[in-house]
Amino acid sequence: MTHKSNPVGNEITCIMYGIKDAILNDSKKMIRVLVEAAKKEKFKILKSVSYAFKPHGFTAILLIQESHIAIHTYPEYNCLVFNLYSCRGPRDGRRALNFFKKAIGPKKINLRESRVKIDQNKK
Amino acid sequence: MTHKSNPVGNEITCIMYGIKDAILNDSKKMIRVLVEAAKKEKFKILKSVSYAFKPHGFTAILLIQESHIAIHTYPEYNCLVFNLYSCRGPRDGRRALNFFKKAIGPKKINLRESRVKIDQNKK
Repeated sequence: MTHKSNPVGNEITCIMYGIKDAILNDSKKMIRVLVEAAKKEKFKILKSVSYAFKPHGFTAILLIQESHIAIHTYPEYNCLVFNLYSCRGPRDGRRALNFFKKAIGPKKINLRESRVKIDQNKK
Repeated sequence: MTHKSNPVGNEITCIMYGIKDAILNDSKKMIRVLVEAAKKEKFKILKSVSYAFKPHGFTAILLIQESHIAIHTYPEYNCLVFNLYSCRGPRDGRRALNFFKKAIGPKKINLRESRVKIDQNKK
C-alpha cells in the first residue's frame, strides 16, 4: 500500500499584539512554550532552528512531522507572527495555537486560517 | 534610533503540481534550488534545516533574515507546497518563487499570496 498524506493541509497565520517585553525578549521561554504547544497538539518535533537578531527580534522554527511552525517576533511593535502549516487535515494546529497564545498572553490577536487543498486530479 | 521592521509582511503559499519524480525525490537538488531562489531575491540565509521522511516526502526550511521559506513535498500526489513569509514588505518573495518554479518545472500551480499587516496602533 502506498503511503498517502491527507490531501488537505491547514495554515494558520496569527499576529499576536501587546505582548510584554519581558516575554517577547525571552527567547528561551518562547522556544520552550513553542515546543510545549507542539506537544499539546501531538505534533512530532523532528528538528528546530532559531536565530536572535540585532538589535532585537527573534525567529524560531520547528520542523515537525506534520510540516512546520514558525514564530517571528517584532519587539518594536510588541508583537509576533505565529505561522503554522500542517498536512494533517483541516483545522489542525488550533490546540497548539491556543496553548501558545495562553502562555504568551497577547492583548489582541489577528487570526487567519485557511485550508491548503491538494487537488488529486492535477497530477 | 530604534530599529523598525516593515509593518507589512508578505505570505506566499503555492502548491506546485505535476513535478517529475526524478526532481521531487532529489532532495539535494531541491535544497540547492531553494538556496539559489533565496539568493535571487537577495534574502539572507541564516540557517537551514531539512528532513527526509519514510517511505517518502521531504521538508526543507530556510531561516532567512527576512523570515522563512519552507517546502514540503508530497510525492504521492506529484506535488509540493512552497510557503514563504517575508517581513520585508508587500509582494516580496515573488522572484524567489518564480526562480524556484522555473527550476522545478511544475505543470500547474495554485498560488495564494496575502499581506500580513501589523497594526501599529495595537501595541
